[in-house]
Amino acid sequence: MSSPSGDPDPLSSHQSDVREVAPGAPDLPLQPADVAHAAADLKGRVHRTPVLTSRRVNELAGADLFFKCENFQRVGAFKIRGAYNMISSLTDKQLKKGVVAFSSGNHAQGVALAAALLNTNAKIVMPDNSPKIKVEATKGYGAEIVIYNYGKENRETIGKGIAEKEGRTLVPPFDHDLIIAGQGTVGLEFGQQVDALDYVFCPVGGGGLTSGCCIALKHLHPAVKIVGVETEAANDGWQSLKSGKIVTIDPPNTIADGMRTVALGERTFEIMRTYLDEMVLVSDSEVIEAMRWIFSRLKMVVEPTAAVPFAAVLRNELRLTGKRVGVILSGGNIDMDNFFNLLRHQVHA
Amino acid sequence: MSSPSGDPDPLSSHQSDVREVAPGAPDLPLQPADVAHAAADLKGRVHRTPVLTSRRVNELAGADLFFKCENFQRVGAFKIRGAYNMISSLTDKQLKKGVVAFSSGNHAQGVALAAALLNTNAKIVMPDNSPKIKVEATKGYGAEIVIYNYGKENRETIGKGIAEKEGRTLVPPFDHDLIIAGQGTVGLEFGQQVDALDYVFCPVGGGGLTSGCCIALKHLHPAVKIVGVETEAANDGWQSLKSGKIVTIDPPNTIADGMRTVALGERTFEIMRTYLDEMVLVSDSEVIEAMRWIFSRLKMVVEPTAAVPFAAVLRNELRLTGKRVGVILSGGNIDMDNFFNLLRHQVHA
Repeated sequence: MSSPSGDPDPLSSHQSDVREVAPGAPDLPLQPADVAHAAADLKGRVHRTPVLTSRRVNELAGADLFFKCENFQRVGAFKIRGAYNMISSLTDKQLKKGVVAFSSGNHAQGVALAAALLNTNAKIVMPDNSPKIKVEATKGYGAEIVIYNYGKENRETIGKGIAEKEGRTLVPPFDHDLIIAGQGTVGLEFGQQVDALDYVFCPVGGGGLTSGCCIALKHLHPAVKIVGVETEAANDGWQSLKSGKIVTIDPPNTIADGMRTVALGERTFEIMRTYLDEMVLVSDSEVIEAMRWIFSRLKMVVEPTAAVPFAAVLRNELRLTGKRVGVILSGGNIDMDNFFNLLRHQVHA
Repeated sequence: MSSPSGDPDPLSSHQSDVREVAPGAPDLPLQPADVAHAAADLKGRVHRTPVLTSRRVNELAGADLFFKCENFQRVGAFKIRGAYNMISSLTDKQLKKGVVAFSSGNHAQGVALAAALLNTNAKIVMPDNSPKIKVEATKGYGAEIVIYNYGKENRETIGKGIAEKEGRTLVPPFDHDLIIAGQGTVGLEFGQQVDALDYVFCPVGGGGLTSGCCIALKHLHPAVKIVGVETEAANDGWQSLKSGKIVTIDPPNTIADGMRTVALGERTFEIMRTYLDEMVLVSDSEVIEAMRWIFSRLKMVVEPTAAVPFAAVLRNELRLTGKRVGVILSGGNIDMDNFFNLLRHQVHA
């Protein structure tokens, strides 16, 4: 969903200069101009999502909170941004061969819709524990689905195999400059829509959204503090930033299905290591409590992953009293039954 | 909740000229300028709520739908507009004595918050079948609650008794020019936010919102068709407009608790008789289906009454294909358990 809007784009004076970096030798090739270039490509194809506020929530939280509503984005999550940005850069020859992606859900839908919008076709490798709503929606956009056994098979191997065999371009879920630049348009818009943010809280899965937002937001507002948030089980990013190297964990058991990635990417890690101010962990039950607030106070539906940053704000470890705090609601794709079961459980706990 | 915005107000060149009309002799004293005057009074005190759209919903509905999100309004519903507009017109002497209101819910919260904002105090007469969330929220704004037996006692008598005994000003739920003018600011904003609407669908309880929107919208866009919608059980407005006189029904058994009024008011009836293009009825189960769409496709929480207009749009009795259709989502106040029970029922039906 969108609300009418038409702010100028302060970063659009530069052309994109995306460079490939060899794995293991990242050197922050991604620039604010790349995010601006992505924003220009995405204009009119994805929503400039609204930023909503609630006085009642501000009173209760003791801070000025601004919610960037990517749950109202096309496909119900920010993932369309990166997928469209990458697929729109393909040559006609590449588009003719099609694309392939592996994803637990929202990236799948993003790739499927972007492929449809750009007149190419997509094959999506999805784990057998994907939320039903995400599998159905991905099919609904015209993509072909390949299901694999989560925890036993390697989705990356399957995806790369299909890419090689069929000549399809692999659209990775996060660790690619064009994907990161696309996701970064969330931060670019947010920084244009709200002045003088002290903090922005982002959910961290593979780090595409957070690293893209770092690049866009630190350029627009150098003083803003960017906080990445994970659930306790999905703490690979937290471990990686503490230890200074990428830590890989076992597939985590968390309700935040967008955080079931096992490691940050080379690129996302380097960007986050350079720019990110803080990593915070929250429990699954804090996430459910945050979803309840968003339901009852903000009148919105978000998926668990999207409630993770707000859970960290509610915990108030960072002493946010009186601050201007941006909170990214990354998506709203959740089965109704799953939503009810999660929130009911907490109600009766 | 609000999104930043600052459209000019095309109706604000006239001063308000609210006249009292004797019951039985209404002559449409309310003018577009009164709504503009209310909008000026409300500026900065209530939200200019966003209008949201969804391409996916448009594709499925075959029309361009625009949702005016009063579920994001202060107190979670449009009712703060009329209440604030009326209470802000009271003299210092009247404010010192306080106000009293009778309401099944959202009007109660609107009066309670408006009273708090204007430094007066409110006593609210509520039926014993009011949703718990609405009783609690009303208390939370500092109002004193008087519970009565729905179906046995007459809330109007109780409210008027308190007004007389304590010298409080009665803030009626709908049938007062200042209330209607306040609710009409929903229509004024909507008409400013979206061009060339062919239709606007409004929920009809006592008719305050619908009649106010008629006045504002028909002035801004004379060609727009205004459609009032009730549930089948709460069809007093439908009967009244068909028969040309106000029809009173027994307290209706409907999930749309904002429609449990038994009759239109003198003023709201006359305005609707003059301006309204159509009345439509929907079933409670169609309302639940509309709530499910709003949950799963629009990622928003609305109360049953607020889903009534969208239920009529989905039924498509009026052949809306290709039209630009405004839909007012009037509020989002619903107990979580109640919400789950309603939607679950439909899921498993």
